[in-house]
Amino acid sequence: MSEARIRYGMVGGGPGAFIGAVHRMAARLEGRYELLAGAFSSQPQKARAMGSQLGLATDRVYPSYQEMARSEAARPDGIEAVVIVTPNHLHFPVAKAFLEAGVHVICDKPLTTTLNDAETLRELVRRSGRLFFVTYTYGTYPMVAQARALVRGGQLGDVRVIQVEYAQGWLSTAVERTGSPQAGWRTDPALAGEGGCLGDIGTHAYHLVEYVTGLRPHSLAAELTRFVPGRRLDDNVQVLLRFAGGARGALWASQVAAGEDNALRIRIYGDKASIGWDQEHPDELRFAPLGAPPQTLRRGGAGVGPWATCVTHLPPGHPEGTLEGFGLLYSEVADALVAVRDHRPVPAIRVATIEDGVAGIRFIEACVRSARQDAAWVTLD
Amino acid sequence: MSEARIRYGMVGGGPGAFIGAVHRMAARLEGRYELLAGAFSSQPQKARAMGSQLGLATDRVYPSYQEMARSEAARPDGIEAVVIVTPNHLHFPVAKAFLEAGVHVICDKPLTTTLNDAETLRELVRRSGRLFFVTYTYGTYPMVAQARALVRGGQLGDVRVIQVEYAQGWLSTAVERTGSPQAGWRTDPALAGEGGCLGDIGTHAYHLVEYVTGLRPHSLAAELTRFVPGRRLDDNVQVLLRFAGGARGALWASQVAAGEDNALRIRIYGDKASIGWDQEHPDELRFAPLGAPPQTLRRGGAGVGPWATCVTHLPPGHPEGTLEGFGLLYSEVADALVAVRDHRPVPAIRVATIEDGVAGIRFIEACVRSARQDAAWVTLD
Amino acid sequence: MSEARIRYGMVGGGPGAFIGAVHRMAARLEGRYELLAGAFSSQPQKARAMGSQLGLATDRVYPSYQEMARSEAARPDGIEAVVIVTPNHLHFPVAKAFLEAGVHVICDKPLTTTLNDAETLRELVRRSGRLFFVTYTYGTYPMVAQARALVRGGQLGDVRVIQVEYAQGWLSTAVERTGSPQAGWRTDPALAGEGGCLGDIGTHAYHLVEYVTGLRPHSLAAELTRFVPGRRLDDNVQVLLRFAGGARGALWASQVAAGEDNALRIRIYGDKASIGWDQEHPDELRFAPLGAPPQTLRRGGAGVGPWATCVTHLPPGHPEGTLEGFGLLYSEVADALVAVRDHRPVPAIRVATIEDGVAGIRFIEACVRSARQDAAWVTLD
Amino acid sequence: MSEARIRYGMVGGGPGAFIGAVHRMAARLEGRYELLAGAFSSQPQKARAMGSQLGLATDRVYPSYQEMARSEAARPDGIEAVVIVTPNHLHFPVAKAFLEAGVHVICDKPLTTTLNDAETLRELVRRSGRLFFVTYTYGTYPMVAQARALVRGGQLGDVRVIQVEYAQGWLSTAVERTGSPQAGWRTDPALAGEGGCLGDIGTHAYHLVEYVTGLRPHSLAAELTRFVPGRRLDDNVQVLLRFAGGARGALWASQVAAGEDNALRIRIYGDKASIGWDQEHPDELRFAPLGAPPQTLRRGGAGVGPWATCVTHLPPGHPEGTLEGFGLLYSEVADALVAVRDHRPVPAIRVATIEDGVAGIRFIEACVRSARQDAAWVTLD
Repeated sequence: MSEARIRYGMVGGGPGAFIGAVHRMAARLEGRYELLAGAFSSQPQKARAMGSQLGLATDRVYPSYQEMARSEAARPDGIEAVVIVTPNHLHFPVAKAFLEAGVHVICDKPLTTTLNDAETLRELVRRSGRLFFVTYTYGTYPMVAQARALVRGGQLGDVRVIQVEYAQGWLSTAVERTGSPQAGWRTDPALAGEGGCLGDIGTHAYHLVEYVTGLRPHSLAAELTRFVPGRRLDDNVQVLLRFAGGARGALWASQVAAGEDNALRIRIYGDKASIGWDQEHPDELRFAPLGAPPQTLRRGGAGVGPWATCVTHLPPGHPEGTLEGFGLLYSEVADALVAVRDHRPVPAIRVATIEDGVAGIRFIEACVRSARQDAAWVTLD
Repeated sequence: MSEARIRYGMVGGGPGAFIGAVHRMAARLEGRYELLAGAFSSQPQKARAMGSQLGLATDRVYPSYQEMARSEAARPDGIEAVVIVTPNHLHFPVAKAFLEAGVHVICDKPLTTTLNDAETLRELVRRSGRLFFVTYTYGTYPMVAQARALVRGGQLGDVRVIQVEYAQGWLSTAVERTGSPQAGWRTDPALAGEGGCLGDIGTHAYHLVEYVTGLRPHSLAAELTRFVPGRRLDDNVQVLLRFAGGARGALWASQVAAGEDNALRIRIYGDKASIGWDQEHPDELRFAPLGAPPQTLRRGGAGVGPWATCVTHLPPGHPEGTLEGFGLLYSEVADALVAVRDHRPVPAIRVATIEDGVAGIRFIEACVRSARQDAAWVTLD
Repeated sequence: MSEARIRYGMVGGGPGAFIGAVHRMAARLEGRYELLAGAFSSQPQKARAMGSQLGLATDRVYPSYQEMARSEAARPDGIEAVVIVTPNHLHFPVAKAFLEAGVHVICDKPLTTTLNDAETLRELVRRSGRLFFVTYTYGTYPMVAQARALVRGGQLGDVRVIQVEYAQGWLSTAVERTGSPQAGWRTDPALAGEGGCLGDIGTHAYHLVEYVTGLRPHSLAAELTRFVPGRRLDDNVQVLLRFAGGARGALWASQVAAGEDNALRIRIYGDKASIGWDQEHPDELRFAPLGAPPQTLRRGGAGVGPWATCVTHLPPGHPEGTLEGFGLLYSEVADALVAVRDHRPVPAIRVATIEDGVAGIRFIEACVRSARQDAAWVTLD
Repeated sequence: MSEARIRYGMVGGGPGAFIGAVHRMAARLEGRYELLAGAFSSQPQKARAMGSQLGLATDRVYPSYQEMARSEAARPDGIEAVVIVTPNHLHFPVAKAFLEAGVHVICDKPLTTTLNDAETLRELVRRSGRLFFVTYTYGTYPMVAQARALVRGGQLGDVRVIQVEYAQGWLSTAVERTGSPQAGWRTDPALAGEGGCLGDIGTHAYHLVEYVTGLRPHSLAAELTRFVPGRRLDDNVQVLLRFAGGARGALWASQVAAGEDNALRIRIYGDKASIGWDQEHPDELRFAPLGAPPQTLRRGGAGVGPWATCVTHLPPGHPEGTLEGFGLLYSEVADALVAVRDHRPVPAIRVATIEDGVAGIRFIEACVRSARQDAAWVTLD
């Protein structure tokens, strides 16, 4: 009755890396994964230290992702899936190597640093027959799932206006020149790609819109700004969006919003009702129908549907946060991986796919194109 | 020691009009005004009813603003100032008539329905030597004054990003076709001018930016949308703004934001700190310096300057709102009017002037110009 | 059609007094009152200064309340009502003087400094045939009226638990010894009576419970504490309450709650739903029915009844506060006074009466009695 | 460098049990524990199902805790610690069995159902030399640790007033008679002990006070009420508290607070500042110094000390909740258990001990004693 744990490996996520540790905790939460292999760092000593700290067998702590892909593919007990948590520029070659080795991929966002790479990768995924997930993690928060159910179930009526924003303040000064590795690669075009703030958090906001509403813009005008002197990539992004069907949107992403921590917020207004969600208080969803008092829907509470009740870990009032949302992502991916293992049809899950990954890169590319034309309107297809 | 009350009259503000009653209450709050004359309605019966209800002498309840201007100018006890609270298209002729009659003017926003009228009016004001105020009322809220003091005092450092929004939901359906007079004239280009939501509330948001920061944009791109079928003016506005000095802004105004009441909010991010203010909770101002915990400044409370303490009516924790903010506007205007009466220099007050009024019309004109070019960037001067 | 303004006078409320100015603004708000006489201060110079500032005729600025009562009663144009905003110990003699002179009374709370005086005053009111109002002002806030309508309309079911609190921090230090007149008399038993914080704000909380629920406790246990060294009256009050029908309550009032401004909050839990209201955000009322999402009811908004719509001054989203709530009190009192003047039956209004005033003193007396017995349980009747 | 995982077992926590699953997730979060044995249910089939679901070896899924204690003690690879998540009445015998078998204990609260058992258990712990932890989990939330650091560091000055409350609504109706196992045992004196709501959540609130302030009350008056007809234990608790040093407190716990989920809130007022914390928004702590604006301290953010930064999993703005707080508890317990294993001194950790467990039972006992005397004041020792 108990399923065997999913054997997985990690590329990136060495000592001091933030998001790698988050992935590992999220994977542990429900006990369905087992970390068995890693290429944690290009510095062998760091890689070994991390492997030892995590209790991996020494022969499965690899000096390079290439060797890891090759060796794990050759082992009968090799990993089933790899988690890629490197800087952006490595997403493509690492994903390619593991897909070619027959390993499922869970890849951080943005998918790649160029649109060409993204489309090549999509083709590779198709040919490989392997599953590919992109960790746009906010979609799996229960109250985001509830928001999606409300919009897609018609309770907002026709969507008119979408206001989405993602504001952080941690790059308000030139921390990339003070030795912060987190800031270093994110502000370096060679490692991050053409989008700075745009790629790092703007794409999260963009994906959230599509995830909740099912709408994608056909054209946009994007103002990319670099406020911190000497910075090489945008640290502030303001975008106007036009959607098929007539909805209008505005997206703001910033990493120079002094005083903000991780303020991802979305508000969607339809002709019947509106919703509002704030990532920093993720267990709550404001639902305001025309002509009735606004309600505060709570995860697991009255008046919410199955996605916001069954999938959660705790009763209402026991706050869940980033790790629980991330844990649900891992849990759904596990459902899909186990289905493949058991030769069953892969269930529909809520986790972003290669298509969503490509869409994110298209968005970056279009914004950069608009910005180069002094923020003129450009089409997205 | 007691000053004589300011004798004032009102044009507009008949039975059922919302904003006229607000002006009257605001003028009463500190007991410095006396309402003596009015042309409340073009319908004589309504005009008389309102005059009677307000206890005016019957010979000072006028059938037209022209007669009122003429008669009051001729009386030794004639009004010193007139309050204009008509639909927009009457602001210009009414203001003109009273300026020419030597009466100070307190005029609702937006100033006029065309830029040409606005500039003509500015010239009239200059020539008349009379005082002219535009009731962009949000500037006089104590915590907005505090925000202004923080920004202008340099506590935010260089301003980088301005996010301002003004969201209402009351025009989510075609209420203008259900007999609502409030909705009727606001959605009629002949009465409201070229801006719908833009002129009605977008200009409030625009003025707030300038009022707090002292910055005016040099160019903008404006998306004006009409969501409700059959509506003749915009009901949703999204604007990107570029300011001299490099700051970037986004302005959103909507009257189809289902579930919103009167959600005017401004956030300003500098390189040292940020502030945030929400009109629906006007006694609080968020102040978040880089590298320190965010503070909640409270009207009259610790850590706030003179504008947010002396000018208010009540101690902290005793909420003030729209009427008190409006009352402060009237109180400051009274300071200016009494100075003129006493042949003293007019003190610097915080109330919007004819220049601010013209700036608002320039903003409307530029937005409309941009929108006609498919939301292209246009310059503002 | 226009009613003549109510001619009123004021006892107390001289220069620097807080609550007198609030009463005057509240009375002005709707233009239904005219201040014609006053005994503003026992210091003649201060009294005259205030009279002059308010534009009163010099012969109606009185050196004493006794002379004011006598003179005004003798004038054909004498005041119809007096507002008493003195320290507590004067409420009784001043009220007595004006009742005996045939003048209606609007008296600040608490009613008197002893239960005996309160009961005597009740008898005087009965015999005088005059109207008597006590300014427990929080009852007239629109959303408190809505709360009352919900509870009394049965939407909470049987009331089980009442948690009410009123927390201020301004007496956290011995400000009464720094020359603050506000603090001075409030902490002096000769001027304030036996309750310090208890009488000043505890009775507000107590009245709010009764006002909203219609329930009065039959017994209580009260812990009265003096935290600031040298203070002569309680500055912190914690009371357990037992109501007829079985409901249980806890009341906390404090003036040493550092960091609190004027935090009056009430929560009422029934077997079907609960409500919560916070005076510092008075336009909102939380309504949480069992088995449904909590709603935020807004003044003037959807889903609220007549008291929370018709009686207010502004549409939802335009915040109202203390003055507007107070203004509604004055407006309702005006309805009653005009009815008397016109020999019509006095309408049922929501303003506290002499009975509520006596109930407040009974509460103070019982709390003091309990405290003297080491916070033992005592009965209230 | 990697430590071996702590081998642990669980008693209770079978299918459908809420808190057992929470413990397992919390123990997984940092990968420092390995679940190897369990007596999950007295029903063998349920016990086996849970063991299988968790991937345990079949010979380590036990039909009784007695057999589990015996067998595990005999194995060279036996468990080092046991987690007890049974109904309250089993805490004592299970803890006793494992202590006697030389196994460390992590026990749910309240410690026992009688004070006598609690004191006996304390003696057993002393004699055993084993570590014993009680899962009063709220103490390990980072911002509670910050609160404690502020209070104990003197930043509040002398503590004057403590207001603590824990409100839930899930027992507003007689759910114990609808087959809910959660409600069933909690409302049954034979399984829960003498306190219903008092033992289940009142003790959490009580412990939080002591944890944050270091203060314990010397006397109290407790009103225990049963609101739901037929219920055999209290479902609402209101307690007045007197602390050594003069501080005064009020504690409210309720499980019939319709509309509340898990509203544990504490506010502490000193003569220099106050703090406020709300479990439903655990990443924030309000800190309001006298004479300065209130601050919102955020987990991991500026102005917070080591406990609220180093010990957390995620940067500010990435919400943490119940599981992360619980995970920190398990992490600290792991530090202690590894120290014992390595024959190092046990570090000071923030997790509740047997002493705290006994204090909780003393509190229950005193409240019940007071309630039996009609809520008279009783001493607490």
